[in-house]
Amino acid sequence: MVNKKILVIGGVAAGTSAASKAKRIDPDADVKIIQDERVVSCGACGIPYVIEGIVSDFQELIERSADIFKKEYQIDVITNTRAQRIDRDKKEVYTIDLQNRVETIYEYDSLVIATGARAIIPNIKGVDQTDGDDIFLIRNYEDGLKIYDSKKAKNASTCVVVGAGLVGLEMIEAFTKRKARRKMDITVVEMSDHVLPTMLDKNMAKIVQRELESNGVKVITGEQVEEIVGNSISRDDNVKTIKTNTNRQIDTDFILLGTGVRPNSEIAKDTGIDLGYANAIKVNDYMRTNIPDIFSAGDCATARSYITNENMYIPLGTTANRQGRVAGENAAGGDARFRGIAGSAITKVFDLYIGKTGLTKQEALNYGFDPIEEEIESVTRAGYYPDSKPIWIKIIADRKSGRILGSQIVGGEGVKERIDLIALALLLKADLRDLSSYDACYVPPASPVWEPLNIAASQTAKQL
Amino acid sequence: MVNKKILVIGGVAAGTSAASKAKRIDPDADVKIIQDERVVSCGACGIPYVIEGIVSDFQELIERSADIFKKEYQIDVITNTRAQRIDRDKKEVYTIDLQNRVETIYEYDSLVIATGARAIIPNIKGVDQTDGDDIFLIRNYEDGLKIYDSKKAKNASTCVVVGAGLVGLEMIEAFTKRKARRKMDITVVEMSDHVLPTMLDKNMAKIVQRELESNGVKVITGEQVEEIVGNSISRDDNVKTIKTNTNRQIDTDFILLGTGVRPNSEIAKDTGIDLGYANAIKVNDYMRTNIPDIFSAGDCATARSYITNENMYIPLGTTANRQGRVAGENAAGGDARFRGIAGSAITKVFDLYIGKTGLTKQEALNYGFDPIEEEIESVTRAGYYPDSKPIWIKIIADRKSGRILGSQIVGGEGVKERIDLIALALLLKADLRDLSSYDACYVPPASPVWEPLNIAASQTAKQL
Repeated sequence: MVNKKILVIGGVAAGTSAASKAKRIDPDADVKIIQDERVVSCGACGIPYVIEGIVSDFQELIERSADIFKKEYQIDVITNTRAQRIDRDKKEVYTIDLQNRVETIYEYDSLVIATGARAIIPNIKGVDQTDGDDIFLIRNYEDGLKIYDSKKAKNASTCVVVGAGLVGLEMIEAFTKRKARRKMDITVVEMSDHVLPTMLDKNMAKIVQRELESNGVKVITGEQVEEIVGNSISRDDNVKTIKTNTNRQIDTDFILLGTGVRPNSEIAKDTGIDLGYANAIKVNDYMRTNIPDIFSAGDCATARSYITNENMYIPLGTTANRQGRVAGENAAGGDARFRGIAGSAITKVFDLYIGKTGLTKQEALNYGFDPIEEEIESVTRAGYYPDSKPIWIKIIADRKSGRILGSQIVGGEGVKERIDLIALALLLKADLRDLSSYDACYVPPASPVWEPLNIAASQTAKQL
Repeated sequence: MVNKKILVIGGVAAGTSAASKAKRIDPDADVKIIQDERVVSCGACGIPYVIEGIVSDFQELIERSADIFKKEYQIDVITNTRAQRIDRDKKEVYTIDLQNRVETIYEYDSLVIATGARAIIPNIKGVDQTDGDDIFLIRNYEDGLKIYDSKKAKNASTCVVVGAGLVGLEMIEAFTKRKARRKMDITVVEMSDHVLPTMLDKNMAKIVQRELESNGVKVITGEQVEEIVGNSISRDDNVKTIKTNTNRQIDTDFILLGTGVRPNSEIAKDTGIDLGYANAIKVNDYMRTNIPDIFSAGDCATARSYITNENMYIPLGTTANRQGRVAGENAAGGDARFRGIAGSAITKVFDLYIGKTGLTKQEALNYGFDPIEEEIESVTRAGYYPDSKPIWIKIIADRKSGRILGSQIVGGEGVKERIDLIALALLLKADLRDLSSYDACYVPPASPVWEPLNIAASQTAKQL
């Protein structure tokens, strides 16, 4: 019997998960990863921490090198190589080596497309007028390196971040805490009326805005950057100016664009693979596309919400890993099923963790629910125990059934696990009574005697 | 209409919760608390932290004073007064003031018995030979004060703790870290073959034993204290000697007995109220006893497990609060239902949090399940992020259905909320697939990319 050829395009979270799982399921398979970056398996979520200096080196973010994949897993990783075209009939992928331009054709029996996403370059006049050292994107390993190595970013006294999303805010903290030549004045410009618009409602976002401002960050919301000017030869100070739609002008040494990502789905589209939500590659719960033997996973693919059962596009490393495993197992002949996502996400902004899972009230309305919501403020430890931190919890539930629909949590600690608890509640279609009744444990250094989630659920249930 | 008389015997967690809830449900009711201690509403779980010096004063543990109950809630708290007898026909409670011995009779329409529990004085020869300053119990506010004020405990260089349960271990940490005249050598003697026998299986308990030992605590398991000798006038060093069943002898300046508690259910028994598991007052989900208009809640009462549906006796403040609210609501004419307990408990021993919920494998066997179990070791942060701490997770599940039956977690952080998540999973009868599939969030400072609970569930599921 000829060994099965399993080809994976993309070597970050979804791709490496898929390849590893495929090899585990079918040890005889010939598993290859085509990766267009120099490195493989890089935890991009860690980039801000390298910039900040908490993590000493980008190398530390690389979980497993191409060498390790080869030696320990017998998986070939072909780096610096871009997949250009898929021939679905011949089951071949046409690739090009990005250094020597040599073209190679790889055959496959099963193909996993895990091409990820790329940063959106926003439609701002002058956004392309860069000397390569003054306007940065932040998405992958190379982006991180560029900022890290940038003399301008290191010496800057001013910075404008466009977009107050997860990555934008994480980078703000990194720039603020980085050991740099001078203190940096940072301004973030967000076109929505509040920061972290994809995660939080306005009232919860205000807590985050306060945290940013108390750390010296200037926050401008509800304004759109329309133009980037400057950097001309005539101005030897090398300063750029940002212009917003309210004619506000902000001078800045450099600019970070944190305006979201879009799926790298072009190669799939050209192959005749159906795209879905947000032009992401449409997959079913088995990570299959509409073309036989072609799977997709991660930031290039859709994911089904286990709350609404609708396909969504929320590119996150956690989902990429999970989908990757399912794609890998099925590419190797298995029958694994992805249970879906709740849209759980978390970030850290200075001393606050900010998490979200499920739907906001507005999203719930959009999906036809009749939602109620309630917000409470509590603490993370017993009142008398030192270093207790505030925690704010918002619960969104269905008015008729009391079914939990989503939650937003902001606090000094214990946010990640509480978001996870709600994510489980969402999977199990729990209602407010369940969430106010489970037997929470208590020890003064780790919680107040009434678990904040229990309180939040009880308070929300009063509206039923 | 005459105002309803709601009488509560006991003024700690269950009693104050019941009284407060009753008053909120029926603001016209005449609500009284009979409390045999000097203080009311004292968070006894905080006692170790006062001894240790983290919390500066016992007063800080008192959430609400009798004055506040009167002024803010219009609830009378009659302190220093013991309920001696209940006349179920006349609906009267006979009390005595512990200072002036004056007897008073209180009428009630609804009665809540929340008399709590008391420390068990173990059957050890010589346990009663105390000068009041060398053998201590630890249960309530007065016990805490006694140890706190004890000159011997403050000046001691040796201490033996009998029983390696939650409170015993918490007090060990307190003694170790307390600013005392000299460093204290502490020995803990546990008759079970491992520490924290009600919470952990032996393999998990070993992690805790290591933590104790690395903090200089001598741990003796599988030995029973049979005799306490010494403290005679002839020995001016005032040292006691502990003898165990293996003829081991340990000299010690003072002894702490941490050998469990028993319910204060005698007054109920004398009234003809049925007792249940462990001689606790038998209540249904509405906190009703078998006598009309008499409710019970907290450490004196049973609680139904929402895993086995059997009545249990696991006296904890969290359960007391929850049951108290239900009892209070129903005493005021409501129809609240207690959803039961999972037996969730948590403690902190030096740098480790230790949590348990649901059943151990042995308990699962006892209840007729066919359990599987698996244990994993993971970390609490991304590999490259500093200060990551180890976390050990054990999952117990039913072999046939995969239904989660319990969990034990030991780790440096994030234990409390993960135990809570399992407690919710138990309430909702979740299975291993659910626990490996919910959409956990990820941020490097708060978790590894694969949530340890997801990993633990996946690993356990391999045995299905």
